[in-house]
Amino acid sequence: MFLRKSLTPVYAKVAIGMAAMMAVLAPALAHAQEVEYLTQSNANILWTLVAAFLVMLMQAGFGCVEAGFTRAKSAGNIMMKNFLDFSVGSICFFLFGFALMFGIDAGGFMGTSGYALSGVGEADLPWSYTFWFFQSVFAATAATIVSGGMAERTKFGSYVLVSIVVTGIIYPISGHWAWGSLWLGDDGAGWLEGLGFVDFAGSSVVHSVGGWIALAGALVLGPRVGKYTEDGKAKAIPGHNIPLAALGVFLLWFGWFGFNPGSTTTADDTIGLIAMNTSLAACAGVLGAMCISWFRFGKPDISMTLNGALAGLVGITAGCATVSPGSSIVIGLIAGLLVVLSIEFIDKVLRIDDPVGAASVHGVCGAWGTIACGLFNTDGGLLFGGGFAQLGVQLIGVGVFFAWAFGAGFILMTVIKGVFGLRVEKEEELKGLDIAEHGSESYSGFQLFSNE
Amino acid sequence: MFLRKSLTPVYAKVAIGMAAMMAVLAPALAHAQEVEYLTQSNANILWTLVAAFLVMLMQAGFGCVEAGFTRAKSAGNIMMKNFLDFSVGSICFFLFGFALMFGIDAGGFMGTSGYALSGVGEADLPWSYTFWFFQSVFAATAATIVSGGMAERTKFGSYVLVSIVVTGIIYPISGHWAWGSLWLGDDGAGWLEGLGFVDFAGSSVVHSVGGWIALAGALVLGPRVGKYTEDGKAKAIPGHNIPLAALGVFLLWFGWFGFNPGSTTTADDTIGLIAMNTSLAACAGVLGAMCISWFRFGKPDISMTLNGALAGLVGITAGCATVSPGSSIVIGLIAGLLVVLSIEFIDKVLRIDDPVGAASVHGVCGAWGTIACGLFNTDGGLLFGGGFAQLGVQLIGVGVFFAWAFGAGFILMTVIKGVFGLRVEKEEELKGLDIAEHGSESYSGFQLFSNE
Amino acid sequence: MFLRKSLTPVYAKVAIGMAAMMAVLAPALAHAQEVEYLTQSNANILWTLVAAFLVMLMQAGFGCVEAGFTRAKSAGNIMMKNFLDFSVGSICFFLFGFALMFGIDAGGFMGTSGYALSGVGEADLPWSYTFWFFQSVFAATAATIVSGGMAERTKFGSYVLVSIVVTGIIYPISGHWAWGSLWLGDDGAGWLEGLGFVDFAGSSVVHSVGGWIALAGALVLGPRVGKYTEDGKAKAIPGHNIPLAALGVFLLWFGWFGFNPGSTTTADDTIGLIAMNTSLAACAGVLGAMCISWFRFGKPDISMTLNGALAGLVGITAGCATVSPGSSIVIGLIAGLLVVLSIEFIDKVLRIDDPVGAASVHGVCGAWGTIACGLFNTDGGLLFGGGFAQLGVQLIGVGVFFAWAFGAGFILMTVIKGVFGLRVEKEEELKGLDIAEHGSESYSGFQLFSNE
Repeated sequence: MFLRKSLTPVYAKVAIGMAAMMAVLAPALAHAQEVEYLTQSNANILWTLVAAFLVMLMQAGFGCVEAGFTRAKSAGNIMMKNFLDFSVGSICFFLFGFALMFGIDAGGFMGTSGYALSGVGEADLPWSYTFWFFQSVFAATAATIVSGGMAERTKFGSYVLVSIVVTGIIYPISGHWAWGSLWLGDDGAGWLEGLGFVDFAGSSVVHSVGGWIALAGALVLGPRVGKYTEDGKAKAIPGHNIPLAALGVFLLWFGWFGFNPGSTTTADDTIGLIAMNTSLAACAGVLGAMCISWFRFGKPDISMTLNGALAGLVGITAGCATVSPGSSIVIGLIAGLLVVLSIEFIDKVLRIDDPVGAASVHGVCGAWGTIACGLFNTDGGLLFGGGFAQLGVQLIGVGVFFAWAFGAGFILMTVIKGVFGLRVEKEEELKGLDIAEHGSESYSGFQLFSNE
Repeated sequence: MFLRKSLTPVYAKVAIGMAAMMAVLAPALAHAQEVEYLTQSNANILWTLVAAFLVMLMQAGFGCVEAGFTRAKSAGNIMMKNFLDFSVGSICFFLFGFALMFGIDAGGFMGTSGYALSGVGEADLPWSYTFWFFQSVFAATAATIVSGGMAERTKFGSYVLVSIVVTGIIYPISGHWAWGSLWLGDDGAGWLEGLGFVDFAGSSVVHSVGGWIALAGALVLGPRVGKYTEDGKAKAIPGHNIPLAALGVFLLWFGWFGFNPGSTTTADDTIGLIAMNTSLAACAGVLGAMCISWFRFGKPDISMTLNGALAGLVGITAGCATVSPGSSIVIGLIAGLLVVLSIEFIDKVLRIDDPVGAASVHGVCGAWGTIACGLFNTDGGLLFGGGFAQLGVQLIGVGVFFAWAFGAGFILMTVIKGVFGLRVEKEEELKGLDIAEHGSESYSGFQLFSNE
Repeated sequence: MFLRKSLTPVYAKVAIGMAAMMAVLAPALAHAQEVEYLTQSNANILWTLVAAFLVMLMQAGFGCVEAGFTRAKSAGNIMMKNFLDFSVGSICFFLFGFALMFGIDAGGFMGTSGYALSGVGEADLPWSYTFWFFQSVFAATAATIVSGGMAERTKFGSYVLVSIVVTGIIYPISGHWAWGSLWLGDDGAGWLEGLGFVDFAGSSVVHSVGGWIALAGALVLGPRVGKYTEDGKAKAIPGHNIPLAALGVFLLWFGWFGFNPGSTTTADDTIGLIAMNTSLAACAGVLGAMCISWFRFGKPDISMTLNGALAGLVGITAGCATVSPGSSIVIGLIAGLLVVLSIEFIDKVLRIDDPVGAASVHGVCGAWGTIACGLFNTDGGLLFGGGFAQLGVQLIGVGVFFAWAFGAGFILMTVIKGVFGLRVEKEEELKGLDIAEHGSESYSGFQLFSNE
């Protein structure tokens, strides 16, 4: 009856409508006849935005990887941290982070204008909005890396504070050194740029910074209960959902096609090479990590292989626009080997409990990628006849980013630990952070082993 | 041997091939030398399609959120409903929904032409195909919202009927009132457009409509078994897979970058602001919901926080193109607060069992977003010196969409209930809809608690 | 204190900065005033890359579908295979696969130039990089289909070998026959193209090839332990995670919007129709499979319905650019019916254990889609007055692709079986491949039923 009532008049009018349409439709739609073309500036906005959307989706990837590689009892908490990273981070980056990173340079050290995008002229707003958004998802990426290293034992409120400082201050300031000129040109240029430092999409600027802060966090927190036996042996704490982690790696890989090619922020003809390099390096990273894990453990290890993909991606991020496809394979392969060795080194030698290998994937492979520019850049790389100049600058950058991010991260964590406490109580940790910090379970209805 | 056989001739030919290539490759590829430019109309097609792809992925997001927030025993059923929404919905929208929404206007009430895209001139087909596809994923979004409110107790076949009527009739008709002119210009304009009603990407047109139908469905169905105790207290029925729900929210957030910026259907320079506003409002929604849940429940609630992201997104959907970034933060923050209060109100005061909070997220926050245009629009908003005119029209729209969607939804549900039955038997509900309606389990091999 | 130290100088400089900015910002940003336009060639690169990104994400979709439809004890192994497919595949496709597929034609049978993209002129590199990347994700799609048919019992190392040969040799060679001219024009054209064979986005070239190799693999491997009772009855082995599989189908559907519309590799005005056709066929596939499963089994089957979506997508892949929206619905609907009948036929009559229905979804529906071009093409299809010519060529193509892919696949599997072994030991299979092949579990902490 309902259907009848509303449809009857429709059918009645269709006959008339169809006739009317012939007269009306064609001219109504057709007078975009004079040909207009898409301006390059609007094309740049379109491309940069699409790329930014992909980078934003990396938050989902990080969430899945970090949740999947840790235990069921804290899976919701990890996801919450990823949401908060992005949310608190974007707003801080809007209010002041962006200005510190891209505003008018003060002494090469930091930007000083553009708080909440104030002071931008009318004509520059469309690009500034776009550029801000693209940069905001990068800032959030740096922040979200940290949550992995601090998983399963960090107080939620304290973690939110960490996020605020990372996206609002630590990341923007060192970002300014290398990328300050990207918004205002020379007026915004930082000191590392002046030296000729190259980090196209952020092996150091984003990934190493995130990775080293994660390392500082893991160090200040101490290992999870049960991670090391009384005689100091490291015990593996397996992740609870490998398919989720694998999905997360695929999502990250997908998002990286925004991260690297999108860093042109220009719809030009260089993006094909960047996409190809990005993909090949990730593939090689998978092979590198799989092979070395197979060799060392007797079986191809799943979580190492998944981390190998990320290692290759982080490794190619600095050089994706300036190396050849062949070099990308080599860079990715080495990143894949490195990440396995680094994870073992940090776990077993340094005895720092980094549950998802964030410091190795992002810190170590980010440093490797930055150095690789000095070796493989077709223009200026040591192996391509460019001498040691570029390599030297890259090494300075790597050292500076480590000192800044690990140092600032360490101070930050220590201060928060002293003032608010950084770690939950032991019983809370044993119960899991989902119950302890949020009062709910992630897998209601599933039977879980009581001790995990 | 297999390898040898096929590769030997290759190697033999490579020498010749390489020589030939030098002569052949360069001219073969190079004669696109005269420079051609991308027309704006093709750019609009490209942009609108990419945006539509993102919106389509929101179906995955809805599926994950709705499955994650409900119980394991009906997870497959929820996914099925999401598939059916989109599938049945697209085909109905092709056959008649699109025509009712965008065809030649009859009395401001409905469109009357373009059934199965018939009658479109040759030259207008490329854009019409593109526009249809973009609109079809919007229609499916409205429909899929409904499944959340009706989760875990609705007969599958009856639900398919609901989907048909929603995407084919209820949504298109009210959509016509506000957006009728988008295809044929003035010839298609509906009555609300005539009043100056603003709803850029569909806070009301899509989200409120979906949310209010969901509310009607939840009301007619009644609560799930065990949701309310005998003395009327609401019991929380926790979701079975929070990481899945969190992934779903990220996918929705990602898809919203198609939903809002894509609603320009033009590759112009306004899309940066829209993306930025969309992101900031979602971030603020997260903070708003987290803070109020922390304040009210003593802990930052995960599912409320996740719903806060969606609340912010729904809230900014109407005004994303017409408010400032600062206003977006305020709108999102208020949406985040509202969604928590609304979920509690509907759950505890109205005692309507809306398992995923669909009415609150989409209905209430959609209404809020529509009103917010009247307050925050930089051109015409009350708080920006525009007086009460815009706000008045927005309030009319909010009222009209509620009356139409809830009313038509209520009648629809009641009729289906009377004719076919809307709800499964109690034993079926207790067993779970996966077994009862589809004869299979979602998590074969996992030990689940028998009572859930 | 940390905060103070770094922020104090900022605030001090803001006043000066704000003043300076007014003078600096506007001219610094504004002198892109002379209007430049986006060239069509750069637009093609942009569009083709974005499409390639979506296709790459299909790997995630395949991983989720294959893992979700099989058992928990081998879920990580399936994901590993998907990672390896893509990784090994991309590198082989870079080194030689691409050259065999698109290089200078030798006798219509294979390409012979462009190994590792060597010999490409400077000016042609940007497009060649882009085109390579787009094609590499297609090659990986063909390969990853195979893992589904061989799930839960294949030796990991042997599977990697399979992947190498599929992406490096089997797929590129038959691909050359139909698509050889796409890079170098007539210089690369294969023999099937010469006959007028039409397969726009690869119903045969990609999907049937993958599906028939999967069938060969499943046949050579034999069924999983417990799949057939002693008297030969097929037993259903239900998937362990239906929401994951459903998410995977949505991701595949989303990625298909890169696969089909992207196959224009041109940002032109035909992509709207292709997207619309793709979506409608998938929707119809859902309905077709759901209805026939409802009719045959008494209930709408979830996994059949999900496969119906894929069936519709595979079915429309060949004809998406050359049929009408109405025909797309018919093609998808028939694909949805076919896939259910084919799965039952292969399972119960042929008694080949194809755990996810890969041969039916990709092989059979790919063949159907290829034939459908001969029936429904608006230009040349039998039902549109085009006579039998096109249909005849399509049938030849279907036969040739079956003979080649199944034949080469069968030889490959048999050789690997003889030399290295293709299947794990029975105890390993019972334990699950995650433990047996990788030494880890996918769902640590979850209680699983011991026999699954």
